[in-house]
Amino acid sequence: MRQAGRYLPEFRAIRENVDFLTLCKTPDLAAEVTVQPVDIIGVDAAIIFSDILVVPEAMGMQLVFDDGSAQKRFSNGPHFPSPIRSRAQIDALPVPDPHSKLKFVLDALRTTRKSLNNKVPLIGFSGSPWTLATYMVEGRSSKNFRYVKELIFSHPKDAHLLLDKLARTVAAYLSAQIEAGAQAIQIFDTWGGILAQEDFEEFSLRYIQQILSLVKRNGSPAIVFCKDCGHSLEKIADSGADVASLDWTVDIGKAREMVGSYVGLQGNLDPAMLYSTPERIEKGVQAILKKFGKGNGHVFNLGHGILPDTPVENVKTFVNAVKKLSVQYH
Amino acid sequence: MRQAGRYLPEFRAIRENVDFLTLCKTPDLAAEVTVQPVDIIGVDAAIIFSDILVVPEAMGMQLVFDDGSAQKRFSNGPHFPSPIRSRAQIDALPVPDPHSKLKFVLDALRTTRKSLNNKVPLIGFSGSPWTLATYMVEGRSSKNFRYVKELIFSHPKDAHLLLDKLARTVAAYLSAQIEAGAQAIQIFDTWGGILAQEDFEEFSLRYIQQILSLVKRNGSPAIVFCKDCGHSLEKIADSGADVASLDWTVDIGKAREMVGSYVGLQGNLDPAMLYSTPERIEKGVQAILKKFGKGNGHVFNLGHGILPDTPVENVKTFVNAVKKLSVQYH
Repeated sequence: MRQAGRYLPEFRAIRENVDFLTLCKTPDLAAEVTVQPVDIIGVDAAIIFSDILVVPEAMGMQLVFDDGSAQKRFSNGPHFPSPIRSRAQIDALPVPDPHSKLKFVLDALRTTRKSLNNKVPLIGFSGSPWTLATYMVEGRSSKNFRYVKELIFSHPKDAHLLLDKLARTVAAYLSAQIEAGAQAIQIFDTWGGILAQEDFEEFSLRYIQQILSLVKRNGSPAIVFCKDCGHSLEKIADSGADVASLDWTVDIGKAREMVGSYVGLQGNLDPAMLYSTPERIEKGVQAILKKFGKGNGHVFNLGHGILPDTPVENVKTFVNAVKKLSVQYH
Repeated sequence: MRQAGRYLPEFRAIRENVDFLTLCKTPDLAAEVTVQPVDIIGVDAAIIFSDILVVPEAMGMQLVFDDGSAQKRFSNGPHFPSPIRSRAQIDALPVPDPHSKLKFVLDALRTTRKSLNNKVPLIGFSGSPWTLATYMVEGRSSKNFRYVKELIFSHPKDAHLLLDKLARTVAAYLSAQIEAGAQAIQIFDTWGGILAQEDFEEFSLRYIQQILSLVKRNGSPAIVFCKDCGHSLEKIADSGADVASLDWTVDIGKAREMVGSYVGLQGNLDPAMLYSTPERIEKGVQAILKKFGKGNGHVFNLGHGILPDTPVENVKTFVNAVKKLSVQYH
């Protein structure tokens, strides 16, 4: 999950001088902010600093970050001024070569690996085809997802064409990330949960499966995070993923009973709990450890990325609580 | 589910002359827009036109609708300029008498009943204590729900005090609605789904149960809608509800297997499907009817309120498809 960000003064110091997209595209700086949480909060893995929307940009879509105020990244977010609204636009989309169009991410991975010097593993990531499609079709973060739903319901063939192009793009991108040094990959399906179950399977999970069958993994495990998709956990676990990442609304004990024998489980403290007290955070960590129970196969994590304005001390409390309290379980 | 609104030209004609809150508070007009969908789209029940936020207002909170533009109701929404952020504010909240403070809703129900003349039944509603608390504490619709989560995690006793006051307020309000003519009541827990399962049970469902045990029902059935809470369906069905209302991410066939023998099920077409074609809408209706299967206990509905800009013709297509295709199942 996202662990670099504005809650860290060290991150803010870098962002003062450079806009968000430039930070993503400057490998030395991206590597620097990737490593910050490892040093400062003591996490056991680094996840490359980037944004899922660099993929549609690599496919030729103009991407704009309203970067005027410090909070914009988290409030209004990025947008595509010319969203995908026609078959002709879908036909015109290329499947880009990540080695040229997304070289800055690959360079950032290489630099980060050197900087980490095998201290902790490095995770690469991509948005899922469905989640990328929602932004490309809506043009920005959405509430009702009118246009992308109109696409899947009224023009399912066009939707599948778009999603297939995205799946091939993401597969090549993740293969290149592994080649560049990513030791695990994570696919984020932030918006799978806005779909009915059969629509989720047809328009999202199917393309995650396609990616997982295409990526040259070289032994790197694949983590799949589908937010608000607890209803389809068994199918996610059966997608080719090594680890299913759970948001905080899933009961990790029940999840382990269902699928824990054939995939690892990642998660799943409510990130908003980091706004509370050290005592409450420790209690929350303890509750999740107890639910998962003894034995291996648990990657402790938040149920989503760290929220803006989270107190750094609370993030440290969280990480330390996991390290301390998990000993008796694993 | 909300079925009056701007997608209807007849609604827009009335809203041209009055702001949203005035419409809620003018019984003759509220009754008129309540009846509109019955006449225009042919639904089998009316749901009183109102807003869940009139309850916090009745408890003394200033409520502001930014009503400048036609779309504001649906985009930025209403807000409370002085949100609840302290124990003292919670202590100061009254449990208001609905007969004085929410008389306009009761009058609207009485007028609507007269106007409907028993053509179709009339449904009353309220937000759940948890959902009302999210708005009262955040001050407005939220993305991360920082403040209300800080309240439940850091000050759970204060949270329970607030939720108990809300439960007693809502119970009195729904009892008064039934007394004024509501023939069924619905509790909307729009934001139950942002909580982990045990937090949902402790801070939301528990207070819905409290309401259902307090409301003087006089034979009126109670419908409970907890959005994104499919994980807790069995507990919702066990809450005292007569009908569990499902959003579109729940498989209604599986839901019937789990709880269909002791509660009715309402739902659950994705409201965004009404942006698509008549053929697709009919196919979607057919799929849900087939999943539920033969027999009684199904209130066909959307999985949430009708979205802005939904074409009226598609809403009619939906209602007609349900009437036509359900005959062989019920």
